[in-house]
Amino acid sequence: MTFTAAVSGASGYAGGEILRLLANHPDIEIGAITAHSNAGSTLGELQPQLHSLADRMLQDTTPEVLAGHDVVFLALPHGASADIAAQLPADTLVIDAGADHRLQDPAVWEKFYGSPHAGTWPYGLPELPGHRESLAGARRIAVPGCYPTSVLLALAPGFAAGLLEHDDVVVVSASGTSGAGKAVKANLLGSEVMGGMSPYGVGGGHRHTPEMEQGLSLAAGAPVSLSFTPTLAPMARGILTTATAKVRPGVGYAALREAWEAAYADEPFVRVLPEGQWPTTKSVLGSNHATLQLAFDEHAGRVIVSAVIDNLTKGTAGGAVQSMNIALGLDETAGLTLQGIAP
Amino acid sequence: MTFTAAVSGASGYAGGEILRLLANHPDIEIGAITAHSNAGSTLGELQPQLHSLADRMLQDTTPEVLAGHDVVFLALPHGASADIAAQLPADTLVIDAGADHRLQDPAVWEKFYGSPHAGTWPYGLPELPGHRESLAGARRIAVPGCYPTSVLLALAPGFAAGLLEHDDVVVVSASGTSGAGKAVKANLLGSEVMGGMSPYGVGGGHRHTPEMEQGLSLAAGAPVSLSFTPTLAPMARGILTTATAKVRPGVGYAALREAWEAAYADEPFVRVLPEGQWPTTKSVLGSNHATLQLAFDEHAGRVIVSAVIDNLTKGTAGGAVQSMNIALGLDETAGLTLQGIAP
Amino acid sequence: MTFTAAVSGASGYAGGEILRLLANHPDIEIGAITAHSNAGSTLGELQPQLHSLADRMLQDTTPEVLAGHDVVFLALPHGASADIAAQLPADTLVIDAGADHRLQDPAVWEKFYGSPHAGTWPYGLPELPGHRESLAGARRIAVPGCYPTSVLLALAPGFAAGLLEHDDVVVVSASGTSGAGKAVKANLLGSEVMGGMSPYGVGGGHRHTPEMEQGLSLAAGAPVSLSFTPTLAPMARGILTTATAKVRPGVGYAALREAWEAAYADEPFVRVLPEGQWPTTKSVLGSNHATLQLAFDEHAGRVIVSAVIDNLTKGTAGGAVQSMNIALGLDETAGLTLQGIAP
Amino acid sequence: MTFTAAVSGASGYAGGEILRLLANHPDIEIGAITAHSNAGSTLGELQPQLHSLADRMLQDTTPEVLAGHDVVFLALPHGASADIAAQLPADTLVIDAGADHRLQDPAVWEKFYGSPHAGTWPYGLPELPGHRESLAGARRIAVPGCYPTSVLLALAPGFAAGLLEHDDVVVVSASGTSGAGKAVKANLLGSEVMGGMSPYGVGGGHRHTPEMEQGLSLAAGAPVSLSFTPTLAPMARGILTTATAKVRPGVGYAALREAWEAAYADEPFVRVLPEGQWPTTKSVLGSNHATLQLAFDEHAGRVIVSAVIDNLTKGTAGGAVQSMNIALGLDETAGLTLQGIAP
Repeated sequence: MTFTAAVSGASGYAGGEILRLLANHPDIEIGAITAHSNAGSTLGELQPQLHSLADRMLQDTTPEVLAGHDVVFLALPHGASADIAAQLPADTLVIDAGADHRLQDPAVWEKFYGSPHAGTWPYGLPELPGHRESLAGARRIAVPGCYPTSVLLALAPGFAAGLLEHDDVVVVSASGTSGAGKAVKANLLGSEVMGGMSPYGVGGGHRHTPEMEQGLSLAAGAPVSLSFTPTLAPMARGILTTATAKVRPGVGYAALREAWEAAYADEPFVRVLPEGQWPTTKSVLGSNHATLQLAFDEHAGRVIVSAVIDNLTKGTAGGAVQSMNIALGLDETAGLTLQGIAP
Repeated sequence: MTFTAAVSGASGYAGGEILRLLANHPDIEIGAITAHSNAGSTLGELQPQLHSLADRMLQDTTPEVLAGHDVVFLALPHGASADIAAQLPADTLVIDAGADHRLQDPAVWEKFYGSPHAGTWPYGLPELPGHRESLAGARRIAVPGCYPTSVLLALAPGFAAGLLEHDDVVVVSASGTSGAGKAVKANLLGSEVMGGMSPYGVGGGHRHTPEMEQGLSLAAGAPVSLSFTPTLAPMARGILTTATAKVRPGVGYAALREAWEAAYADEPFVRVLPEGQWPTTKSVLGSNHATLQLAFDEHAGRVIVSAVIDNLTKGTAGGAVQSMNIALGLDETAGLTLQGIAP
Repeated sequence: MTFTAAVSGASGYAGGEILRLLANHPDIEIGAITAHSNAGSTLGELQPQLHSLADRMLQDTTPEVLAGHDVVFLALPHGASADIAAQLPADTLVIDAGADHRLQDPAVWEKFYGSPHAGTWPYGLPELPGHRESLAGARRIAVPGCYPTSVLLALAPGFAAGLLEHDDVVVVSASGTSGAGKAVKANLLGSEVMGGMSPYGVGGGHRHTPEMEQGLSLAAGAPVSLSFTPTLAPMARGILTTATAKVRPGVGYAALREAWEAAYADEPFVRVLPEGQWPTTKSVLGSNHATLQLAFDEHAGRVIVSAVIDNLTKGTAGGAVQSMNIALGLDETAGLTLQGIAP
Repeated sequence: MTFTAAVSGASGYAGGEILRLLANHPDIEIGAITAHSNAGSTLGELQPQLHSLADRMLQDTTPEVLAGHDVVFLALPHGASADIAAQLPADTLVIDAGADHRLQDPAVWEKFYGSPHAGTWPYGLPELPGHRESLAGARRIAVPGCYPTSVLLALAPGFAAGLLEHDDVVVVSASGTSGAGKAVKANLLGSEVMGGMSPYGVGGGHRHTPEMEQGLSLAAGAPVSLSFTPTLAPMARGILTTATAKVRPGVGYAALREAWEAAYADEPFVRVLPEGQWPTTKSVLGSNHATLQLAFDEHAGRVIVSAVIDNLTKGTAGGAVQSMNIALGLDETAGLTLQGIAP
């Protein structure tokens, strides 16, 4: 059986990556492809890498155009998805790649985004405890942010196993520039970003903090607090997250390693690397994998977890398709290649 | 029906890319994976992007290990493939990613390589006139070089249609560093190549010239002469070739465009872009596509063709798998995704 | 004696580089610094690398602000400099980094730019025969374009020595993205340019052709015709030019090498590298040098010259300062460091 | 008065950068230039960016060759400098860019390096309290490591002012690949590093921790403990350090900002950026500057300081020349340009 899927925001980086994966998906037929200011253009002009879809025309992003598909992907700016979702049938699977439906606490949403909370949808990170079950059969799914995906995969096992202190988690992430989107800004010009690194959205970055704390708190069963600093790296794709947390007294390296390995032993897309091997973002380029390595810095009493994902694949479009597969009862790995592109 | 395939040279860039494609190929089961100095390591240590093959052990590259497969890929240094191929059964499909069996003229081979000629195998560039037919059912295939792939696809239509002068073709190509291989050399260190461009192997580059001239001469039906300069660009993958040739008197832009469009109208992996759109190597990253655009510089009387490929995919491993598909009677596009990874 | 200098267009890449050099110049005191839409900002916000000038305020670009300096640098869009220059005193040294005053033939200017010709100023490439003399004491100077600088330095010696055929010069250049300026365009985003190469302004690039042909024709004493293709490389700075021309019958490698070495033997900023060493753009990063190497492709009958410059230094701001030094009677190398930054 | 200087390790990145600065230094005459395996080559072959020194010949690194200069720079592997320094006259200024003489505690040295401690020399970071005085007239100077330079400049003001808790400092740094040196290793190939990020020497990185803790403890007047994770970024030069420490109760943003601004108000090479502006490594490329910005994450109770330096300039060669200037009684900024190269 084949499902039909519509993709909005198709001229952006998230939309393009969703289309790349769907075009290779054995169970999906791509229906409407929509955009905002680029409606009327062909996809070939805007996403020249999507060779087999080059002649497809971009339509306007309206409920009428999006309706009538089994699945609708929303890759829209913050605040735009709730309205459209409300006008789509309840039995349509709506997958929101934006932030609108990720947070559970309306007060937190309003504090960080300054607008009314649109509601909370099942959170599309199946590797977290209990999440895969909540995605099965779901008809509304919130795709996690790319930074939170990397941070939650990096630290959730330690909190779920009760090995880590709940306060004073410190995270520094480096992201490729596609994480900043396709809007043209002077500081994102190639001449500005090539050959350099800079902190990135130190203000805006805080928006990701409540999503990280929410997920880690769920894993820990109690509030977890976190300091997060994003940086911008001179590469188009990829996130390298360095996540550290204080280890509870009496916990040693063996217990830490066992917790992480056990958590991901059966996961198709998360790998704890063999000891001695450290992850590199290039090894997950275009794949839906996250790879991790951990060290116990006994001197500082901290576990240091390095985690890499492709921000557009596992961090956005791949996570979205993986969740879609679960919701529709398909093979969880369908359409998601298991190899990265390297070098 | 599933075919078994062995891959030698699996620790290098070409070998890694062959494995990436075969791992996604619906009709191939990967058998022996071999290397030279890295035999005994796991693939995960050397090709960490091949997540689903991470635990596979590299074996020695011997005829005994490679025998017993339907297909054997040789991704070996120049001069190493003839010996091994001779020890493999005649009905095994042997695909040589190296240079040994590409040239037809033993004298030319000996002039440029200084060793006895190993023989000529069917040339794995099915888009050239007559080549697809010669690959059907073949049991020995020579994979074209990455630079020649881009140059032949760029210019063959004009020579085949009789529109170009046979002398004084001028080609300048920019290649990503993976084209220089994985051997550690000081000039290939990241610190040396990032942020800079340089001519590359101006001496060694000439080795590609006879392969280019051979292919263009076949298309033209008469000898074609060419000047070729390769340069090294600060990117891991991709080739951008700028190929120019003098246009015969009386030939105009319309005739040129018609020749190129007609030549590739039915090709699954070669696209002449719509007028006004120029190719970028990022649009073919990881895909088996070549995309082209052409201009007629009337002032200079030259056609200028810009062609992009991924040097490791269409330029090496993808071309090899495409030829394998033809030789085995499979769908020509099997295992070869139709989308690139961008941005 | 110290001269005062004003710099317009100070928020752009050319203006920033002019300021970087002037700030280190022993004989220059920086006066007014002007911009268009960024007037009122501090330089520190726009050019954070200019630490010693961080608190300087950008003023409006008007003749009143620019007047009263010994030297005025114009780093303005095409068409904007003639008006301003006309309102500056005749004994002010006005140095135009734009295209307006480079071409000698008004008809050629009008064909390529579609506007009335503003006049021809002494051409600031002192290494060309006779040009240094015309710059001494000049009060109006046209700074060459960055591509033409590289092409003229690459080929002028061969034409001046009568060794090359005048028709069918073929040039392909790769430029860093700063050559495309600081205006925000989607195709210049870091996500788009990192990791890829593309042809660049194949239409617009032709605007450089008449400037190249003008300079080579002057060197040859007869019209020279040329085909030029610019490409965009994933680096912020630098130009690598591959320039080829047909060698006249009877001319061999020794005569070629001797011509190039003799032409630049006494030049402080142009080096013909020792045989066997090829230039890399990184070796001239931030320096005012051009380095060259040449080969004789006997097979094709062409000389191939590789030339590298920093497009913002020798290609723009360094060339401007070098010419200023000559015009003012200063040491030609003042303020221009002799070392590049590498790696 | 002119001083003569010899530079050992001249074929490496640190040695090349020392020579770049000395070549522009008004008070220094470059004497012997030495190397190990590259002795007998010209500098032009190994450091093609040093145009004015291209013909200089590399000599062997022996005490005899190095003796007889006013200043000797040692840019040698760990463990090699003590022997040579012992054979140089006591009144020669010996500046060690290696690690041998940085640590004060022999036990700590032996724990991290596994060899006998060579002694402690004055530490060449004049911006730390009391350090400038200890460098004046010194004849032996230990150049700080590049990571410690960035971390000490980032955090020392807060510890010196008593605003920060002494335990649980967390630092994550991203370094350009030149920080890993010029030795050819497979993981440092351009194909491997371009387009990706990875943790880097998580084991070896710990060697920098005691140097950081030593400097911060001196500033704090009590032991400070720290967790440090270095990562490798796809750029040739630059370090971006994200340093966080817990703020003592009652301390607010105003007190933090005042401490940092006061500490660096008179420093020629350290700038606390205006509020709202964040540092980028490109703004310090080739310059001897460090630029900083700080934020107070009240939610986590941590100050977050972003600091950027060029690892080869302020982080190595520039710091060495700055310390030399102080030791010799020269202008502290002599030979050290005040502008970076950007874009």
